[in-house]
Amino acid sequence: MDYYFDRIKNGTLKLHALEQELPPKEAVKVRRAYIEKEQGISLAKLGSFSINIDQVIKRNIENMVGAVQVPVGIAGPLIVKGVYAIGSYYLPLATTEGALVASVNRGCSAITKVGGADVRILRDGMTRAPVFAARDIVHATEIENWINTHHDEIGKAAESTTSHGKLITVTPFITGTSVYVRLEFDTKDAMGMNMVTIASEKVSELIEAETRARLVALSGNMCTDKKAAAINMILGRGKTVIAGVQLPNELVKDTFKTEAQTLIDVNYRKNLLGSARAGSQGFNAHAANIIAAMYIACGQDAAHVVEGSGCITSAESSDGGVYVSVTLPAIQVGTIGGGTGLDTQRECLQLLGVEGGGSPPGSNAKKFAEIIACSVLAGELSLLGALGARHLAKAHKALGRANR
Amino acid sequence: MDYYFDRIKNGTLKLHALEQELPPKEAVKVRRAYIEKEQGISLAKLGSFSINIDQVIKRNIENMVGAVQVPVGIAGPLIVKGVYAIGSYYLPLATTEGALVASVNRGCSAITKVGGADVRILRDGMTRAPVFAARDIVHATEIENWINTHHDEIGKAAESTTSHGKLITVTPFITGTSVYVRLEFDTKDAMGMNMVTIASEKVSELIEAETRARLVALSGNMCTDKKAAAINMILGRGKTVIAGVQLPNELVKDTFKTEAQTLIDVNYRKNLLGSARAGSQGFNAHAANIIAAMYIACGQDAAHVVEGSGCITSAESSDGGVYVSVTLPAIQVGTIGGGTGLDTQRECLQLLGVEGGGSPPGSNAKKFAEIIACSVLAGELSLLGALGARHLAKAHKALGRANR
Amino acid sequence: MDYYFDRIKNGTLKLHALEQELPPKEAVKVRRAYIEKEQGISLAKLGSFSINIDQVIKRNIENMVGAVQVPVGIAGPLIVKGVYAIGSYYLPLATTEGALVASVNRGCSAITKVGGADVRILRDGMTRAPVFAARDIVHATEIENWINTHHDEIGKAAESTTSHGKLITVTPFITGTSVYVRLEFDTKDAMGMNMVTIASEKVSELIEAETRARLVALSGNMCTDKKAAAINMILGRGKTVIAGVQLPNELVKDTFKTEAQTLIDVNYRKNLLGSARAGSQGFNAHAANIIAAMYIACGQDAAHVVEGSGCITSAESSDGGVYVSVTLPAIQVGTIGGGTGLDTQRECLQLLGVEGGGSPPGSNAKKFAEIIACSVLAGELSLLGALGARHLAKAHKALGRANR
Amino acid sequence: MDYYFDRIKNGTLKLHALEQELPPKEAVKVRRAYIEKEQGISLAKLGSFSINIDQVIKRNIENMVGAVQVPVGIAGPLIVKGVYAIGSYYLPLATTEGALVASVNRGCSAITKVGGADVRILRDGMTRAPVFAARDIVHATEIENWINTHHDEIGKAAESTTSHGKLITVTPFITGTSVYVRLEFDTKDAMGMNMVTIASEKVSELIEAETRARLVALSGNMCTDKKAAAINMILGRGKTVIAGVQLPNELVKDTFKTEAQTLIDVNYRKNLLGSARAGSQGFNAHAANIIAAMYIACGQDAAHVVEGSGCITSAESSDGGVYVSVTLPAIQVGTIGGGTGLDTQRECLQLLGVEGGGSPPGSNAKKFAEIIACSVLAGELSLLGALGARHLAKAHKALGRANR
Repeated sequence: MDYYFDRIKNGTLKLHALEQELPPKEAVKVRRAYIEKEQGISLAKLGSFSINIDQVIKRNIENMVGAVQVPVGIAGPLIVKGVYAIGSYYLPLATTEGALVASVNRGCSAITKVGGADVRILRDGMTRAPVFAARDIVHATEIENWINTHHDEIGKAAESTTSHGKLITVTPFITGTSVYVRLEFDTKDAMGMNMVTIASEKVSELIEAETRARLVALSGNMCTDKKAAAINMILGRGKTVIAGVQLPNELVKDTFKTEAQTLIDVNYRKNLLGSARAGSQGFNAHAANIIAAMYIACGQDAAHVVEGSGCITSAESSDGGVYVSVTLPAIQVGTIGGGTGLDTQRECLQLLGVEGGGSPPGSNAKKFAEIIACSVLAGELSLLGALGARHLAKAHKALGRANR
Repeated sequence: MDYYFDRIKNGTLKLHALEQELPPKEAVKVRRAYIEKEQGISLAKLGSFSINIDQVIKRNIENMVGAVQVPVGIAGPLIVKGVYAIGSYYLPLATTEGALVASVNRGCSAITKVGGADVRILRDGMTRAPVFAARDIVHATEIENWINTHHDEIGKAAESTTSHGKLITVTPFITGTSVYVRLEFDTKDAMGMNMVTIASEKVSELIEAETRARLVALSGNMCTDKKAAAINMILGRGKTVIAGVQLPNELVKDTFKTEAQTLIDVNYRKNLLGSARAGSQGFNAHAANIIAAMYIACGQDAAHVVEGSGCITSAESSDGGVYVSVTLPAIQVGTIGGGTGLDTQRECLQLLGVEGGGSPPGSNAKKFAEIIACSVLAGELSLLGALGARHLAKAHKALGRANR
Repeated sequence: MDYYFDRIKNGTLKLHALEQELPPKEAVKVRRAYIEKEQGISLAKLGSFSINIDQVIKRNIENMVGAVQVPVGIAGPLIVKGVYAIGSYYLPLATTEGALVASVNRGCSAITKVGGADVRILRDGMTRAPVFAARDIVHATEIENWINTHHDEIGKAAESTTSHGKLITVTPFITGTSVYVRLEFDTKDAMGMNMVTIASEKVSELIEAETRARLVALSGNMCTDKKAAAINMILGRGKTVIAGVQLPNELVKDTFKTEAQTLIDVNYRKNLLGSARAGSQGFNAHAANIIAAMYIACGQDAAHVVEGSGCITSAESSDGGVYVSVTLPAIQVGTIGGGTGLDTQRECLQLLGVEGGGSPPGSNAKKFAEIIACSVLAGELSLLGALGARHLAKAHKALGRANR
Repeated sequence: MDYYFDRIKNGTLKLHALEQELPPKEAVKVRRAYIEKEQGISLAKLGSFSINIDQVIKRNIENMVGAVQVPVGIAGPLIVKGVYAIGSYYLPLATTEGALVASVNRGCSAITKVGGADVRILRDGMTRAPVFAARDIVHATEIENWINTHHDEIGKAAESTTSHGKLITVTPFITGTSVYVRLEFDTKDAMGMNMVTIASEKVSELIEAETRARLVALSGNMCTDKKAAAINMILGRGKTVIAGVQLPNELVKDTFKTEAQTLIDVNYRKNLLGSARAGSQGFNAHAANIIAAMYIACGQDAAHVVEGSGCITSAESSDGGVYVSVTLPAIQVGTIGGGTGLDTQRECLQLLGVEGGGSPPGSNAKKFAEIIACSVLAGELSLLGALGARHLAKAHKALGRANR
């Protein structure tokens, strides 16, 4: 051990290069020990993990010292009536926020009592938008024209880099001398960011060669990746999903101890008027809670919670009860790649019956997205109900008072 | 085991009620076994965890079946020159996105080579904004008037519910007949959402009693919690933090294989113009990646990645090099409460020297926020550099090609 | 005439310098004649105006060639129940959009039948936010600190430039190395942009001298002037005004040929959900129409229609009918200065009883803002009604089919 | 006169019905006299107008009492290098804001000195988006499907109502149970709102008949008309136009008394960073001023200033000087219909050589939009220059101090 410590200390061995000399498990152990010694602390619990380290080292992380454990609770069963997800599901939620699982569970219960929630995917396409510099605005329009008249060539270039992905749309946007080319791909069961980044690089090289545009950045923020953005709310990114359910007033009373009309009122004053005045892009109660909990449990990119939680919740009087829906324009998920291969995460995907590539390709990721949207719906119902019945603070007092 | 299975199956025992009959460890085991049997799958890896279950069951989750493991890599050392964080830090990053830790590490290296990054907290206050219904707009103004003239009473009511929190500001907003009262608290080392929710309930009761306003929802979305919102970007929520560093052109060349001017150009066309056209509230490259990785490692509420990642990155020509900064108006973090007490998460906080309550109270959370902001700065530098040098796709090919 | 033409032609006389050699009326005539000759057209109608040219030349315009005539129609009477405006008003609306006056008129009629609309001003302050460059983020916080501890000096500097204006608040915002100082003034009966610009220059000089900040621009867009901006929607700019009215269902049927519930439904799906999904900052039907028509009639700055029309319209079931309100956070109007002194515009202000400085100062501008808000309410009611009753296209066919 | 007064007073004659009994000129006179008497004021100047009243009464306004006069100043000549506008233009600007015309004039001078500004139209289509209610989210997707598979029928229905307009795109958006159908038309030389409203009504009837969707409102705010909205900034509404110009540093010094780099710095800190932090949808200095002044002069709908002024200004170091551009996604203008037929407005259009229908149809409106974009560019240059040279307050003191 000291041998490595000394070399790290004197700079002849980089902390991140340990895997070049040691098997992964050992490398992680030495690195952790080095940090522990340096900082005078113990990372014993971080060091106690059961995930398959070889794979993780190769694909998911550098400079690994261990793993953090996030507790997983189960909500459900939740009956989902989608096109890909049809049936009853237990939802794995990784969270440390007391009361969250119980809340979602209550929403699932209401949905399941009425036979399930409807859900549909409206659009499916992962995007990347490189930005190019033009000489002037005339050159910018020439670049745009070339792009608009060479979709086939662009498609061929893109698809030469991937065996799975298909280019769906190519949309150039000009802002001054900057040309943003929003490339949208069907990435099947993969979330697809790497796939589209690599394909976009190829497309960018082609555009540069043909138009003398200068590539400034492979991502020009009109993608838009990991930032709240109207373009995603409007045009979608990843999967655009809607879910809805009709609840009779009696059920609202029984399950949520409030009235259908109260859910409508809370949604109206909080999710619509409140968000409007706050300049918010999220017109929902707490979609992010459910999105985060499911993304982390299921090995998704947690930074995608930002767009994934972009949700508009609606609640309308209907048939003597209330119809509640969620519209989620940017659910970016995969069932292969990324963190989906980690042992614990894979188990969560298995729990939902969506692990690995689907048959046909893409069907697992779509099924997953449908379940997520219904889970968000369950969460919204429950929080609207708790607010309407004035139970929110009580629930937090009972279940999550840690930081009172 | 069968005894419990039968009762769960026939409905006489609720899945979430197992803890009422069994010690936590057993309850979780039975629940997991039940789900495994029901779904015909194995959750063995989820079931293999080392975190202290008793505490978790009490505070952090319901219906627990196990824990998901998220690998943690180390970036750094990163030299931070804040008011609370002064020194060199190793950053724990929980992620499954290959190349992320390496990227942040490169940014840390650049910052550390120039002696560290400056960082300052500009504002610190956690908010909750209940929404009330007034009879009409005149009544709404009466409610507002009462609030504006009774700050002391409101403060007393709020602080009667907490031993730590202090009410800082009370700001009413009227939209039609809806009155939103944004209550801002100093919550010291706690992230503080529960604390402010409970205090807000008390304040709401007072307002109802005194003004005949009708409380519609304890959260009216002008808080704004877990939604991207301009109000947070403008006024701040949690901690408003800025960090910045000056890099000479030589260092940019050495570390990032590009030029200072290129960083500026990428920031201008991507983070500013691109985000502007996309209708984005995030004017940064990938702040969410770093925020998510640190929040998960350190037991923060992962849904707060939404606001936490609201970041404006600037890059300006300066002294023959470039000055890069990040402005993060809504870093909502704590070092006590929430998920900070879990064993693995606590170790990550210890790694940063910010575990538990600080002395004076609040100083640990502030120190933590300063480190986070500098970490985001490191991440921004690195991605701007990679984009400028055209290394992004290459890095993904080498380190994260899982879903190609 | 030829004498001047030749000199303009050969560059020895600038077109805009004619007033230095000729009385205003002659100068305008020569300039118009020159343009007519140059372009081979007639501007005879533009040249036929009755406004007092001397004053206009001095204060309102350069290079004048004439005046455009915008027809003014009258809507009303409209009963307003404000604090400053109490009574019945005829509204002057300058527009060329057929059907607009008729539409507002119908809204006025509904409001007047129920005895008028309530209206209140919630806040009143015109803003300007110069932007300064700091050396680095630490310097930026030093500048902020200086500002926060020298409000008195800043106030004195500001008020040394004006006999009317009072500095109300000073709010610094830091973004990286840029410091924005939002200065808010009570400008009494003036809209006040010039006043606050001049005062801000004085304040800026003080800040530069004391902090070594470098003034980059006297307006740094956090004002925010003449751009849609969340900061104005949240904090207000100019006058923040709300107006509301309760309409019984019978009246909705009689006046709008639809139901109270239909108004609510249209508002919900169009103004709230539709605007949410569109990424709009306007949650209303057509506030801009009324704002533009009244601003132009009354000599306001027409570019302020951008913020002035930032409106949230609410509609709720209430007492067997509907309560409809408008919230207008940024009504920027004056009754002195700007275009208010032009003869025709002054007559429109006189029609509303708000011409010139009020007693006490500021009361005329406030009265004016109250009337405007109620006018917007009338417009919203009418369009919601027309949409609900499916009369929109019909009205356009009948009254505005010019460009069919 | 008394005869009419009495009948109006006793309610047997509506104020707006005077035209049914009297020729337009008389009707307006009686109405004005009635209001004057009622309010005890004089509207003599309003009553003194030269526009052709017959036409105005028929198409542009109801309840007319007169006309307001807005002074028109001339900026230019401005050399425009577009596709439709090629040559030198004098710009008619209707404003009461002292210093505005002088400012635009200075910008024109800079542009003209370098041989003109480039300008291109990227997209051209006027939109209307009716909103329909579906029974549930499944029904919503059925409606969407029907729409997506019946573009031809929809096109036929739309075009049956108009001899000029062509349907370009049909884009449905679902939010919960609300279906918004964004219909985009080529409206040739007309601004086209009436045309598309009437066509949309026909399309809506078809959709209702075929899908059992229920039309809620003919405009569902995803159009988005007269509200700032990201959808317009991203996808465009009316004409999407960019203009740009390269200025050598010497010219910046001569004309603006500052440096090219200063323009870049002001644009960066004000228009980009400042607007970003303010949550603004306008990333420009004062586009609204120019848009408002030209719209009013040229008979455009002044409420369209809201979207028309949605502008992103860019400024980059280039060839030893600066390249400045404006991107205007939503210029909604026409040269026929609306207020373009009024005598004074028509003269302003004639001044630009764009009066009436173009040959081919649409070319006049496009030419007009190109000129407007270059005018905005001139305005931006000039204000960036004035801010950079610290002349803003001085200009206002000299030219517009009326409301000091």
